[in-house]
Amino acid sequence: MQPVSTALLTDHYELTMLQAALQSGTAHRRCVFELFGRRLPDGRRYGVVAGIGRALDAVTAFRFGDAELADLRSRSVVDDATLAWLADYRFSGDIWGYAEGEAYFPGSPLMVVESSFAEGVLLETVLLSILNHDSAIASAASRMTAAADGRPCIEMGSRRTQEWSAVAAARAAYIAGFVATSNLEAGRRWGVPTTGTAAHAFTLLHDTEEQAFAAQVAALGTNTTLLVDTYDVTKAVETAIKVAGPGLGAVRLDSGDLLVQAREVRAQLDSLGATGTKIVVTSDLDEFAIAALAAGPVDSYGVGTSLVTGSGSPTVGLVYKLVAHEAADGSMLSVAKASKDKKSVGGRKYAMRRRSASGVAQAEVLGIGEPPANDGDDRELLVPLITAGERVYDATLQDARERHAVSRAELPPTAMQMSRGEPCIPTIYEGQ
Amino acid sequence: MQPVSTALLTDHYELTMLQAALQSGTAHRRCVFELFGRRLPDGRRYGVVAGIGRALDAVTAFRFGDAELADLRSRSVVDDATLAWLADYRFSGDIWGYAEGEAYFPGSPLMVVESSFAEGVLLETVLLSILNHDSAIASAASRMTAAADGRPCIEMGSRRTQEWSAVAAARAAYIAGFVATSNLEAGRRWGVPTTGTAAHAFTLLHDTEEQAFAAQVAALGTNTTLLVDTYDVTKAVETAIKVAGPGLGAVRLDSGDLLVQAREVRAQLDSLGATGTKIVVTSDLDEFAIAALAAGPVDSYGVGTSLVTGSGSPTVGLVYKLVAHEAADGSMLSVAKASKDKKSVGGRKYAMRRRSASGVAQAEVLGIGEPPANDGDDRELLVPLITAGERVYDATLQDARERHAVSRAELPPTAMQMSRGEPCIPTIYEGQ
Repeated sequence: MQPVSTALLTDHYELTMLQAALQSGTAHRRCVFELFGRRLPDGRRYGVVAGIGRALDAVTAFRFGDAELADLRSRSVVDDATLAWLADYRFSGDIWGYAEGEAYFPGSPLMVVESSFAEGVLLETVLLSILNHDSAIASAASRMTAAADGRPCIEMGSRRTQEWSAVAAARAAYIAGFVATSNLEAGRRWGVPTTGTAAHAFTLLHDTEEQAFAAQVAALGTNTTLLVDTYDVTKAVETAIKVAGPGLGAVRLDSGDLLVQAREVRAQLDSLGATGTKIVVTSDLDEFAIAALAAGPVDSYGVGTSLVTGSGSPTVGLVYKLVAHEAADGSMLSVAKASKDKKSVGGRKYAMRRRSASGVAQAEVLGIGEPPANDGDDRELLVPLITAGERVYDATLQDARERHAVSRAELPPTAMQMSRGEPCIPTIYEGQ
Repeated sequence: MQPVSTALLTDHYELTMLQAALQSGTAHRRCVFELFGRRLPDGRRYGVVAGIGRALDAVTAFRFGDAELADLRSRSVVDDATLAWLADYRFSGDIWGYAEGEAYFPGSPLMVVESSFAEGVLLETVLLSILNHDSAIASAASRMTAAADGRPCIEMGSRRTQEWSAVAAARAAYIAGFVATSNLEAGRRWGVPTTGTAAHAFTLLHDTEEQAFAAQVAALGTNTTLLVDTYDVTKAVETAIKVAGPGLGAVRLDSGDLLVQAREVRAQLDSLGATGTKIVVTSDLDEFAIAALAAGPVDSYGVGTSLVTGSGSPTVGLVYKLVAHEAADGSMLSVAKASKDKKSVGGRKYAMRRRSASGVAQAEVLGIGEPPANDGDDRELLVPLITAGERVYDATLQDARERHAVSRAELPPTAMQMSRGEPCIPTIYEGQ
């Protein structure tokens, strides 16, 4: 596939600021930008960083080619001097960040961008778009896989979110422990395993449910999943085993009281000798419904709408702020907007997860300058992503998935509570 | 730009259903699929159809090229016979739908797809992705422009949604009456006007606020908008007029109590002779905050997070259901899933907005077969979009914007209530 330029996935004002800064001579001042959230979504105990790999791809593809420049010129977005500067744009600075899959907390610097003002300011919009979306999905997904407690979760929400968000959502869910997606493009582009068998339309298309089941088994084998709630569940389960035999892979329930039905269907399957036939449930599930089904004989969960909309938090409110810049005398100066309701802490930060001797996370420790002594149990959180313009972070999606599993496992037990509450560990600003 | 194939923006099960139907001989049965919502988002009075133009583009680009086929083969998604059929896929059926920008209600058939099962079932995922997202944004946006009551609204939410959703959101908001967006790609791709001036980072970059304002005015002219809440609003407004003169275009407030501040700033501007300088407010606005600011001297609203997340409803829950198919004897048969909590009404529908003699909408009238007599005041809602595989709907974005303005204007006054309630007109199923 042709790499598509990401340069216009950008707010108009980034370019007008650039024009003004080029004219005033401040555009080349060395700056530090920080990407962070002031808080977690309402009541959440931890957040999950996702989108780092996609964000770095977007930086690489951030190029103003002839098509982009012609458009900006025709719409008089900026002047010719600015267009000439944009034509040569290559990010040549440094970016540090949290490894993809890592847990994060209020104030955690998910990304730290150090570059000239001009180079760094232009990346604001696209970096935030990617990290706000992907982290929202991964943060919701992690609660779902935690609630599922080892039972597989499958992402099937593509139809309930924008078509390209769907691809990104499948990727983010996979990082947070989902085992598969329905989205074929996520399979192609990111290697996420894809699954799927049939919808109600397939049953309705046939003259009888038995004909539909027979057609599906003939084409997809007895290990397939038959959807049993189009007409009458009890009759459908009977028909399913009659058609496929007791070796049928699974049945799927997509409506009604899933806990009650799962128990009835399990008993019926067992009575028919189909003791190995699994039960998949799908029907507006979220982390709370999944937790409520823990008591039932459910083998896997298909999750759609709630996952791709971040289970009530479709964005995580990450912001991108100038925290330090070179002053007229060449020294680096911490800066922060003064408005009372939007506090920022200025300067380039370190970030460390303080852990007990037994490896349990105790605090998110942030500060400016040199990090405090590490007694060997603590973990440094910022890793180099781009150094002097070159991408140095090459974690795979599998790495991110593993990073997430390890990071979540070291959180204290309160992290796994479904109820609303405070972040499971405090954020501590050292040296202030 | 190269058109990107949309064929893999599809759930895995659409292809496995296709394989099974090709084998069982039912794939070529004539079918009617309907795309509709069972209800509006919680408490909304009307919905707004958006995404029709994008959906038709997606149908045109729905092609299984060598890259798509190679991927499906390598991952064993379907068998070779199915791949051969996909290689020749061109939608050759008919699609009717609501004009883009139209209001809709529970049960409204936003799209009706008539084709073989095989051709129609494959489009389910991508059509739903586009219409669920774009209609969610337009439905929220329409409430915002209604609340703004003629004052311009500007879309600036790109950073709070996935990077390509941002482009689609800007388009949907424009249909629903927003005047501009911050998103440059929406300007290039859809011709939505783009605007923007500067962020806090620009002020912080300079040694003093006065230097920042002077740099901005030098580069962008006195008609620019200066952001006045980085440090102290009163001092900033004084500096702004000192630097730009009383001809300054506008000042922007992005924090604090906007109603109180707007009044203070208006008085200050007037006292400085800057009676023509406008006040733009931006800060987590939604339709309720906009309505609350109606009493203040605010000239325009910039709306971000709330808009791009559908103001509490990031998806509108549209579904795509098989409602009729050719039976074994060649007759058309209405079909519907029987589960109690998810009722569908079978068969191919007509849709009409019943209006009073004075042109006020009274009901959404749906039925199967011939529509009832139209007394001249009613409006037929389904228009041909694709006929025998050829796109026949060529409404521009401007057309959709005008369609929305006209459609909203004919709704009864309850439509404009911000409080939660029932749809402003009932949906009536005739002949049942």
